[in-house]
Amino acid sequence: MKSTTSTAPAPERRGQKRAPDDKWRTALTCIAPNKILLRGYPLDEVMGRLTFGESIYLLLLGECPSPGIGRLMEAMLVSYIDHGATPPSTLAARNTATTGAPLRACVAAGILGFGRYYGGDIESSMEFLDSGLDLVRKGTSYRDAAAEIVERCRTAGEAIPGFGHRFHTRDPRAARLFQMALELEVEGEHVQMIRAVEMTIAANHTGDVPALPVNIDGAIAAVCGDLGMPPAVANALFIISRVPGIAAQAQEERDRQRPMRQIDPKDHVYDGPFERRLPERRK
Amino acid sequence: MKSTTSTAPAPERRGQKRAPDDKWRTALTCIAPNKILLRGYPLDEVMGRLTFGESIYLLLLGECPSPGIGRLMEAMLVSYIDHGATPPSTLAARNTATTGAPLRACVAAGILGFGRYYGGDIESSMEFLDSGLDLVRKGTSYRDAAAEIVERCRTAGEAIPGFGHRFHTRDPRAARLFQMALELEVEGEHVQMIRAVEMTIAANHTGDVPALPVNIDGAIAAVCGDLGMPPAVANALFIISRVPGIAAQAQEERDRQRPMRQIDPKDHVYDGPFERRLPERRK
Amino acid sequence: MKSTTSTAPAPERRGQKRAPDDKWRTALTCIAPNKILLRGYPLDEVMGRLTFGESIYLLLLGECPSPGIGRLMEAMLVSYIDHGATPPSTLAARNTATTGAPLRACVAAGILGFGRYYGGDIESSMEFLDSGLDLVRKGTSYRDAAAEIVERCRTAGEAIPGFGHRFHTRDPRAARLFQMALELEVEGEHVQMIRAVEMTIAANHTGDVPALPVNIDGAIAAVCGDLGMPPAVANALFIISRVPGIAAQAQEERDRQRPMRQIDPKDHVYDGPFERRLPERRK
Amino acid sequence: MKSTTSTAPAPERRGQKRAPDDKWRTALTCIAPNKILLRGYPLDEVMGRLTFGESIYLLLLGECPSPGIGRLMEAMLVSYIDHGATPPSTLAARNTATTGAPLRACVAAGILGFGRYYGGDIESSMEFLDSGLDLVRKGTSYRDAAAEIVERCRTAGEAIPGFGHRFHTRDPRAARLFQMALELEVEGEHVQMIRAVEMTIAANHTGDVPALPVNIDGAIAAVCGDLGMPPAVANALFIISRVPGIAAQAQEERDRQRPMRQIDPKDHVYDGPFERRLPERRK
Repeated sequence: MKSTTSTAPAPERRGQKRAPDDKWRTALTCIAPNKILLRGYPLDEVMGRLTFGESIYLLLLGECPSPGIGRLMEAMLVSYIDHGATPPSTLAARNTATTGAPLRACVAAGILGFGRYYGGDIESSMEFLDSGLDLVRKGTSYRDAAAEIVERCRTAGEAIPGFGHRFHTRDPRAARLFQMALELEVEGEHVQMIRAVEMTIAANHTGDVPALPVNIDGAIAAVCGDLGMPPAVANALFIISRVPGIAAQAQEERDRQRPMRQIDPKDHVYDGPFERRLPERRK
Repeated sequence: MKSTTSTAPAPERRGQKRAPDDKWRTALTCIAPNKILLRGYPLDEVMGRLTFGESIYLLLLGECPSPGIGRLMEAMLVSYIDHGATPPSTLAARNTATTGAPLRACVAAGILGFGRYYGGDIESSMEFLDSGLDLVRKGTSYRDAAAEIVERCRTAGEAIPGFGHRFHTRDPRAARLFQMALELEVEGEHVQMIRAVEMTIAANHTGDVPALPVNIDGAIAAVCGDLGMPPAVANALFIISRVPGIAAQAQEERDRQRPMRQIDPKDHVYDGPFERRLPERRK
Repeated sequence: MKSTTSTAPAPERRGQKRAPDDKWRTALTCIAPNKILLRGYPLDEVMGRLTFGESIYLLLLGECPSPGIGRLMEAMLVSYIDHGATPPSTLAARNTATTGAPLRACVAAGILGFGRYYGGDIESSMEFLDSGLDLVRKGTSYRDAAAEIVERCRTAGEAIPGFGHRFHTRDPRAARLFQMALELEVEGEHVQMIRAVEMTIAANHTGDVPALPVNIDGAIAAVCGDLGMPPAVANALFIISRVPGIAAQAQEERDRQRPMRQIDPKDHVYDGPFERRLPERRK
Repeated sequence: MKSTTSTAPAPERRGQKRAPDDKWRTALTCIAPNKILLRGYPLDEVMGRLTFGESIYLLLLGECPSPGIGRLMEAMLVSYIDHGATPPSTLAARNTATTGAPLRACVAAGILGFGRYYGGDIESSMEFLDSGLDLVRKGTSYRDAAAEIVERCRTAGEAIPGFGHRFHTRDPRAARLFQMALELEVEGEHVQMIRAVEMTIAANHTGDVPALPVNIDGAIAAVCGDLGMPPAVANALFIISRVPGIAAQAQEERDRQRPMRQIDPKDHVYDGPFERRLPERRK
């Protein structure tokens, strides 16, 4: 959130001497009688004028997004909103719900299951792409930089951040996000870098299984990088975006299942609506 | 979320015999290789077509909102997004952040501080308004019903749910939400009921301090009631809407303060932007 | 913990006027440079002289337990220490562990799964027994009081608090705790009451399945009642006692299983030591 | 917990092929009808024969502790039981309690505040001492090894793990734990190493303030190291040991303070018993 403090001095960071009677500072929301300012904007004016997604951007980054960035922001938040009943974080929330715990306790338990192996891949993907862009800035081509950073992962025996998925051989969310970034003209060097990595992986690829695809973590890391977001903000976005899914899954557990049941994640079926199209006006 | 299951049978609730090889059911999100359906809609189609707020409505209630309801949904989510550094739940998150805990742990600690006295007022406000509407349906006028339910609270020595605020004598968020509900023509009997209660309180009021105002919990309870949302969904909305504020406050603690500090909630100042107006295009 | 404040005035509760420069109060632990007093005792003196279980009693109730009460306290804490891999709260912790989350996040998620249907039965059991003892104090015999309160549950369609178990038809922990209470001569009216309820249930019982047995919640509720502990302290005991089990299960998940696995609670086997006897010196 | 699996095969770790009908394994607690085995011992036999502290050792490490190790275990658990109202993790729990949240939510919030700067020092202290012992095993003297690893910290600009305290210039808990380890003859190379580091720091020390003392994290790290405990178990011990303090502080907040108050950590006084001595029989 470093970029958010540009309009507001952050004296503690600049090593200024803090007088004994000095106070600690916050630049997010100003509360006065009958007035609430969100980053300077009256909250009741923001209501009805900015969407929730745009307001999240304002709160985290300090300024209103442009219309294009606002649309990308909404798309990124929507892309993570839910991924079914089987992610371990969702199962932590459902196991908490089956004990009769209140919804907020279920949501908290679910959030705690965003661990090293789940949700943490955005930050490592951003660092991975930045390591490639460091090479590009020193004169290496995107293609050679991609080959170099992929080779580093292989040598270290590590997975390539932002690539591969347990279920999907082509992640439909990643494809859609890249398409939107292209149309909204916010595509930049991070997207170019991840595209180069994708081509390197495909070129090296042999055998029957499909090549590792870009996943949604990688796509969001690339777009957030091109939007200039710090990794900590991208990390906050992931937490915020999945909370509705965790809440809906925990509430469904309370509504449709008996208490204290033993939840086998593989033993379930989807019984919601068949595949359908959005109403025309939304397209 | 009862209303969401209308298209999907919920056999366990209807007491049908469950065959031994039967599976448990979920109607929220269908995951198949390279396909994610959110309430039946391909998630990559939802991206860019529905906002995050509209997608939350879809996920919780099962259908896309109309444009008017979508706008109200956004406004309700925005109204709760943050309330400064001093709510105890925010302080729980900041105290967790100062220990160096990861952001997700701070957010979880903050959510756990949505307790009986904080955030729980939406459900009790909905029940309070419904108790008045029960009288109206039996032939009592709104005015007499309001007087009756206010009197019941007074007799029981209880606060009137949805009225009063620690800081505000007129809650700007409540006023704005009622105005939007009026303009978008979703105002119904719950808003009429809370208006009647407001007039009863003002009529009974004497003395120097202002009469108790409708607060944002009361306004949201009335609007959610008129939209036909069950109290459990309104409760989920509150949790979802405040997560960005908790995350931003915890991240600011990590960015701007030293670790392991002693946080006095009263000892702070706002150093963000002065009051400002939204850019013209947003109005 | 009301009993703990007898030596310390609690002015806020007594409605005394609080001077503007007044401070809030705590009676638990006094911290001064190079000195830590736990309820008045230097912590370094408590180390090696009181066990952890006795220190928990001291902290929660304000005084050192007698040797007999200390032994009962240890036995109650041990009785709840773990109940295998399948309680939903334990599964919430294991599902959190499989995401790579730190141990403290797993333990927090596990604690959140002590809900209405799990762990909450001690408080309701204490209230149930107290409702019987109210009748006894008005002259009813234990036998008639037991019949009366069992009938009330049956009429209301509610389970009898403190009786029945998913796995056990005779809870070995409850039997052992009653035996210890008898030997240590702390058995009192609450144990007598629960024994009367047990006999009522057995007398009414017909059919092939065994009569509902006293479970460990009921046994602890009876013993805590006879020790004069408030329900809130008994509730704290349950949380404290299960934390080692939650921590051990989460740590075992990290040590022995692969990350991001799908945990089916029914699909496991125990591969620890065969049944064995404690070394002689412990008996 | 690696040492705990010596009696139980852990096939998944050895890369054996897992048959499709194979099950996952746990070695902690075996649940059968009317029988609960804790690491092989019937739980009802453990009740009354092992203390809670000894049972925690059994659960985490797989075997009963010797009487001496049992006493050290109790002392380590007692040493961390509470540290007053001002640690940030305790304040997270109190801020959650003031919202009216249930006790389990307050305890969970408190545990989440065991972060990098609080409670995490045991693991880094163990690694620090082990880095010194690596040098000793290669022939360096304890004195030179201590000088070397202290110098490494100074060069890297890092604090020396296990030394220094915000309040105490001599940590009474550390002194007591070392004395007990000496008397119980479990002192070994880790304690010798930390003593050597202490002497190095004192020898290098100049100026008016006292030299950095060993703190309780350092003392526990040294003793746990000499007992052969893995760092993950030492970490679990810290979480387990502080839960009673978190629970007692949260419960006191509920009992003695008004809801939704603003908690200034510096604005409190201790009003519990004056300093007193343990009853004679305990010494």
